[in-house]
Amino acid sequence: MLRQRLIRFLKENKGEYISGQKLSEQLNVSRTAIWKHINELKNEGYQIKSHHKLGYKLVSEPDLLIYEEVSPYLTTNFIGKNYIHKLTIDSTNNLAKEIASKVPDGTVIIAEEQSAGRGRLGRSWLSQKGCGIWMSVILKPNIQPQEAINLTQVAAISVVKAIEELSHVENKIKWPNDIIVNNKKVCGILTEMSSEIDKINYVVIGIGVNVNCYNFPEELKGKATSLNLETNSKVDRKKLTASILNNLEFYYNTYLQKGFEYIRPICIAKSITIGREIKVIYNEGEMVGKAVTIDSNGSLIVETKEGKRLSIMSGDVSVRGLLDYI
Amino acid sequence: MLRQRLIRFLKENKGEYISGQKLSEQLNVSRTAIWKHINELKNEGYQIKSHHKLGYKLVSEPDLLIYEEVSPYLTTNFIGKNYIHKLTIDSTNNLAKEIASKVPDGTVIIAEEQSAGRGRLGRSWLSQKGCGIWMSVILKPNIQPQEAINLTQVAAISVVKAIEELSHVENKIKWPNDIIVNNKKVCGILTEMSSEIDKINYVVIGIGVNVNCYNFPEELKGKATSLNLETNSKVDRKKLTASILNNLEFYYNTYLQKGFEYIRPICIAKSITIGREIKVIYNEGEMVGKAVTIDSNGSLIVETKEGKRLSIMSGDVSVRGLLDYI
Repeated sequence: MLRQRLIRFLKENKGEYISGQKLSEQLNVSRTAIWKHINELKNEGYQIKSHHKLGYKLVSEPDLLIYEEVSPYLTTNFIGKNYIHKLTIDSTNNLAKEIASKVPDGTVIIAEEQSAGRGRLGRSWLSQKGCGIWMSVILKPNIQPQEAINLTQVAAISVVKAIEELSHVENKIKWPNDIIVNNKKVCGILTEMSSEIDKINYVVIGIGVNVNCYNFPEELKGKATSLNLETNSKVDRKKLTASILNNLEFYYNTYLQKGFEYIRPICIAKSITIGREIKVIYNEGEMVGKAVTIDSNGSLIVETKEGKRLSIMSGDVSVRGLLDYI
Repeated sequence: MLRQRLIRFLKENKGEYISGQKLSEQLNVSRTAIWKHINELKNEGYQIKSHHKLGYKLVSEPDLLIYEEVSPYLTTNFIGKNYIHKLTIDSTNNLAKEIASKVPDGTVIIAEEQSAGRGRLGRSWLSQKGCGIWMSVILKPNIQPQEAINLTQVAAISVVKAIEELSHVENKIKWPNDIIVNNKKVCGILTEMSSEIDKINYVVIGIGVNVNCYNFPEELKGKATSLNLETNSKVDRKKLTASILNNLEFYYNTYLQKGFEYIRPICIAKSITIGREIKVIYNEGEMVGKAVTIDSNGSLIVETKEGKRLSIMSGDVSVRGLLDYI
C-alpha cells in the first residue's frame, strides 16, 4: 500500500523536509502521485508543510484511530488485519453484525463517535467524539454458544491488562463486563452472537473505553469516569487500542487452546466483585448475597445469607459500594 | 386491502361470472381499479375469465404460498401477520436474519424455491421449485439463549401435528430437528439466533418440508422423501403451511406460558430416537449408546454400554436404522 508506506516514511522523518524527488524514488511512483496522496493526507488531518524546493515535512498526525496510526503498535496475527474505521456510526456492534458473515475472523470496526452506542440489555452507551475507543471485534470461534460467556471474560482481562500497561492505574472487572477505576465505570463490554443451537456463526465483542472523555452528563457522574479524569494525564488512544487488541489475541488464543481454566485465575485476581455483597436482578425478582468465586464455566458463585450457594450465569449484578449501589 | 377483498369475493363465487359493476359496488372502487387488479392477479397465476357483458370468473388459483392463498386457513394471532413471499431466494433464513431486528415478532418469510437452502452445521438443503414449504419464522421470546434449543422441539412437534392433520401419515421426530416418515427425512428444522450472552435478540426457525417433491437426486434417495411419495396423494401446501403456523403459535405460547414440561411429553411420544441405538458425533470424537429419554431441559439422555448416562445438548446424532445409518 503506497499510502501506508508514504505515511511511514513521513513519520520516520517527522519534522524534517524530504524532497518530492526523494519520496518519488523511494516509493517508486511519480511525483504527481506523491502530491495527490499528500493532499489526501492533509484532508484527513495530517499537518504537512509543503515547500516548493525543500519538499514535504510532517508536522503532526491526526488524533484518529485509523489503521495507519494504530497498526505501528499492533503485534497481532489476525485480529485487526481487516480494520474498518468510521468517523461516525450508529453503533460499531450493529455494523459488525451486518457484515460479520462476509468478513474474515478478527475483523475490527472502530469509530470516533457513536450516535447510538449500546450497552447490555438494550441500554445506551455514551460515546462522545474523539475521546474514547468505541470498537467491535468479530470472532468466529469453534465453541458452543453457551461458552460464549467466557469471551466476555477474555475481553475484560485484555482491557485490564492494556489499561495497566498504558495508564498504570489500578482497574478491575465488575463481573461480567464492566471495567472499574475508583469505583466508577471506564469501560463496558457488550458481547453479541449469531448461532445455531449448537454452533456459533460469529461473536461480536463490543468494547467501549472512556479514555480522554471528561464531559459526562449529570446523571452519569456518579457512575462513569475516564482514564484521563482518574489519572490526570492524557492517554494515547492509538497505543491503548493496539494494546487491547494485542492482549485480546493473546488471551483469546490461550482460551481456545488451553481452556477457560487458564484464564480463570486472572479473572478472579482482577475481579472487584468477588468477596463483596452483591444484588442480582433477573426476570423473576432479585437476590442478595456475597460473591464467592468464578467457577470453571465462568459463572459467578454467590452465597446467600442462609449459606446457599448459587451459580449466576446472567442477570444484572450490582456490587455494593460501586457505581450508584450504596 | 382491496386486493385481498377482491380475491375473497372471487373465491366465494368461484366458477361463476360476477359483473364488473357488482364488484365495483361491493368493493366500493371504480371499475377501472377492478380491471387493473384483475390484470395483476392474472399475471400472478390466477386464471380469470373476462367477458364483456358477464364480467369476471375465477377459474383457478395459482399453486403459490402467497398470503392471499394461505391466510384463509390461518387462525394465528401474531405468527404470519407479517408475511413475506418470494418466488425465489437464496435462503429464507438468510433474509430472516437480515431483517429480523426491524420486523415484528412472528414475521414469516416463505419462498417457492431456495437456491442455497441450508441445513444444520452448514449443510445444504435441497429446496426445489413449488413442491415444498421453505419458510422461516422470526420469534422474539424473552428466554435465555441456552433455552432456545426448546424452540426447535416446539417447531418439530408443530410440524408433526400438522402433517398428521393434513396427510394422515405417521411421522416422528429424529431428535432434535428432523421429521421422519418411513425411515426417511421429510422435514428439517434449522434454528438460528442472535443474542447477547443472557438475552435473545431474535430467533429464526427455518422449516423445510418436502411436500409434493418426487425428483430427488441419487445421493439423497436413501435419506430423503416427500409426503407425496410416501402417501401416494398430493398434499395441499397452502393448508399445510397454515397448519404448521397455527400449531407453532399454539405450542410456542404453551411453552412460553407453562414451560418445556408441558411440551416434553409430546416430544417423547413423537420421538423416533428414544429407545433406539444411536451414534453421536461431536468435535472430540463419537460415542454409541441407547437414547433413553428427553430431560427437562430438552437434552437427549443417552445410556452407554457401560451403563453411564450422558446428557446430549448438541452434536450430530445418527439413529440406527434411519436414513443411511445401518
